[in-house]
Amino acid sequence: MSAHGRPIHLGGFLIAGNVTHSHPSWRHPRSDPGFLTPEYYQHLGRVFERAKLDFVFFADNSATPARYRNDIRDPLARGTQSAAGLDPRFVVPVVAGVTRNLGIVSTTSATFYSPYDLARSFATLDHLTHGRVGWNVVTSNTTVEAQNFGLARHLDHDVRYDRAEELLEVAFRLWASWDDGALIQDKEAGVFADPDLVHRLDHHGENFDVRGPLSVPRSPQGRPVIFQAGSSTRGRDFAARWAEAIFEIDPTSVGRKAYYDDIKSRASDFGRDPDGVKILPSFIPFVGETESIAREKQAFHNELADPTDGLITLSVHTDHDFSGYDLDAVIADIDVPGTKGLFEVARSLSVNENLTLRDIGKLYAQGVLLPQFVGTAAQVADQIEAAVDGGEADGFLFSAGYTPGGFEEFADLVIPELQRRGRFRTEYTGSTLREHLGLPADANLVPVPRKAVGAA
Amino acid sequence: MSAHGRPIHLGGFLIAGNVTHSHPSWRHPRSDPGFLTPEYYQHLGRVFERAKLDFVFFADNSATPARYRNDIRDPLARGTQSAAGLDPRFVVPVVAGVTRNLGIVSTTSATFYSPYDLARSFATLDHLTHGRVGWNVVTSNTTVEAQNFGLARHLDHDVRYDRAEELLEVAFRLWASWDDGALIQDKEAGVFADPDLVHRLDHHGENFDVRGPLSVPRSPQGRPVIFQAGSSTRGRDFAARWAEAIFEIDPTSVGRKAYYDDIKSRASDFGRDPDGVKILPSFIPFVGETESIAREKQAFHNELADPTDGLITLSVHTDHDFSGYDLDAVIADIDVPGTKGLFEVARSLSVNENLTLRDIGKLYAQGVLLPQFVGTAAQVADQIEAAVDGGEADGFLFSAGYTPGGFEEFADLVIPELQRRGRFRTEYTGSTLREHLGLPADANLVPVPRKAVGAA
Repeated sequence: MSAHGRPIHLGGFLIAGNVTHSHPSWRHPRSDPGFLTPEYYQHLGRVFERAKLDFVFFADNSATPARYRNDIRDPLARGTQSAAGLDPRFVVPVVAGVTRNLGIVSTTSATFYSPYDLARSFATLDHLTHGRVGWNVVTSNTTVEAQNFGLARHLDHDVRYDRAEELLEVAFRLWASWDDGALIQDKEAGVFADPDLVHRLDHHGENFDVRGPLSVPRSPQGRPVIFQAGSSTRGRDFAARWAEAIFEIDPTSVGRKAYYDDIKSRASDFGRDPDGVKILPSFIPFVGETESIAREKQAFHNELADPTDGLITLSVHTDHDFSGYDLDAVIADIDVPGTKGLFEVARSLSVNENLTLRDIGKLYAQGVLLPQFVGTAAQVADQIEAAVDGGEADGFLFSAGYTPGGFEEFADLVIPELQRRGRFRTEYTGSTLREHLGLPADANLVPVPRKAVGAA
Repeated sequence: MSAHGRPIHLGGFLIAGNVTHSHPSWRHPRSDPGFLTPEYYQHLGRVFERAKLDFVFFADNSATPARYRNDIRDPLARGTQSAAGLDPRFVVPVVAGVTRNLGIVSTTSATFYSPYDLARSFATLDHLTHGRVGWNVVTSNTTVEAQNFGLARHLDHDVRYDRAEELLEVAFRLWASWDDGALIQDKEAGVFADPDLVHRLDHHGENFDVRGPLSVPRSPQGRPVIFQAGSSTRGRDFAARWAEAIFEIDPTSVGRKAYYDDIKSRASDFGRDPDGVKILPSFIPFVGETESIAREKQAFHNELADPTDGLITLSVHTDHDFSGYDLDAVIADIDVPGTKGLFEVARSLSVNENLTLRDIGKLYAQGVLLPQFVGTAAQVADQIEAAVDGGEADGFLFSAGYTPGGFEEFADLVIPELQRRGRFRTEYTGSTLREHLGLPADANLVPVPRKAVGAA
């Protein structure tokens, strides 16, 4: 066991679609094309539970990509990220049906849904999973998504976050509208619930009017575990206020360390225990019985990556069309309307390492700038341990270069190695996602105030 | 086998909550209180599939009742309809996980959700059930629901229906946005989809602007089977235009016959084959080994019913407060803003049979005016056959006085009797809900035009 011995948290990173981060994955000979079937997700759920992972995580984008050349043709023909897929909310009960402990996290936009709908959906899912659900709160920032939901363009950055802050405040109050013990169900006495323990909201705010109470009684975890991934200043504060787990994409150790320290510090500024916010960067593993097998697997995968595929997805993420730029130049300094964090990572890489737009496109196709952890089980475990012990992470979300094979290899090879080192659970010790993550079991249903007065 | 031999369609009628139609059911000693757990729905799914039912149907109301005395206290204390429950959309994959053939129908309001969300949700569910999903389209009409979703009051009747017509037109176009064969997934050639077979909508209408395409490829049934329950003139036309199956609550044979003829005629007026619209009235069975056992079961159940419970739910359904009326008078002639059909049935009963408001409250508590079919298996089967052969129904939705026991007794006793008579399937012959219902397997993804020119 290492000197630290701090337990490492691990989640499997998926989109309920054709690819997750690795664009070549759908074309990989070891990938299962069945992403539209329940069996696909049931199999992955069993793999993840056998590996005792904390959770499976589903990202989401609810529009066919159409930013590159402002057209859907290339993304569809090439099968780039989110070209096709399912609404991940409904995959949660599918995975829950074949697992007993695995946490299950769905991304759902706080921009296009109402707070009552979201609160009701995730309270329902928390019941139907017996307390294993997480909600990854995103503020949607692409024009095509906005146009599917009736808006001419996406909401401005600050407007999105203002709306999301109020939405979560309302959702927390809805989840708290049934106190513990409110549901009685005394057949003899004919008393179903105690009305003194169920509360209306009568919320009237800038963005929402919600009467309440929620029609769903208090769920096993009280509310879903809140996931987030903020990168802008506003986004980081939003995450520091609300998130119990944050996922991050940064290929550099320096970048991850800076992000980790920044978020923990911001959480403290909100008066929160920094350990109540788990920072989970991401990687794609290539694991082999020998290092050379692993490197060949990596090379085979990376060779399949096409720069145009990557630029299509970079265009989606940044909501900026990268089709008109010189492929042989470094990335220009652009003020992109979409995800600023990923663009900054891409531009830093380009400038600092003198990578052309073509190079960045290829990297982006290989895995949306997720670093690749490559080698034997011991070598990959070393990289994970080093990042956690080096103050970059409380654990990781890992994605796969081919599905389910990439997850199975990690589960079969790396997990036992981490278990031997005493860094990863050998059995689940709790039954809820919040317990797996080592977060306070007693969910605090009172939101952290907007303007923190600082820790005492 | 009867002279007719027309196959009978049967579905189990549920709300994912404390009670369905029978208000005493939660207090019944044979009822399972676990309506918040997945196991509850898994068990019912297995019972229904063993009985070879066409489908399980989930009604929905997304607000704690608060119309009677404008307060939530009585409904919560008494456990009236929709006092507590889950969002049924997420129960669909729970049931699907333990069944192979059973259709699964979820109610979701066309009033509070966007067409892209609804189309994506039900396309996802159709994939995750391998083509077994139905969507019961309702236009929400209660003030408390509206206030949960940010509206000061519910939308006017015609406004609701105008919105719902456009919403379904858009949803149909979204479901049709991926042609059959658009998804290719040729790994070798690197061709994921054929962009010529995927279509944008660029819909700009009175209520919605939707770009499209849907990000979910064509689902097994093309789209969910559309259920509806229209009772007003506008509602009947809406149902006649869109519905493939209609459920109905009417305790009288005369009323059911008139409704049946009217809807089939309206469907013809829209240029549709009337057999493409299945009319499914509802009942609550009390079945026993002998008639006297059945009658005692019925009496035991009905004695538990409290008039106030019924008036609370009548107030919700009609969106009118019935707390201030004389309990010993017949029901007054009121223009209720909510569900006019149920109010008319209640008022007709009251006037024609000289029933007081108290009597109607008790009847409403016993089962929301669903008739009770009581007796031995043969006697209950006789009632079902007579209704179908008498032109009142293409089958039935049946609810239970206690759950799961009431469903289990029906499955164990009445289903074998109907099978012996050759009126109900002994094995599933298809795998999709549309096949079970005997609807054209080739889903028509082009909506019936708004203004029909009449059948040729």
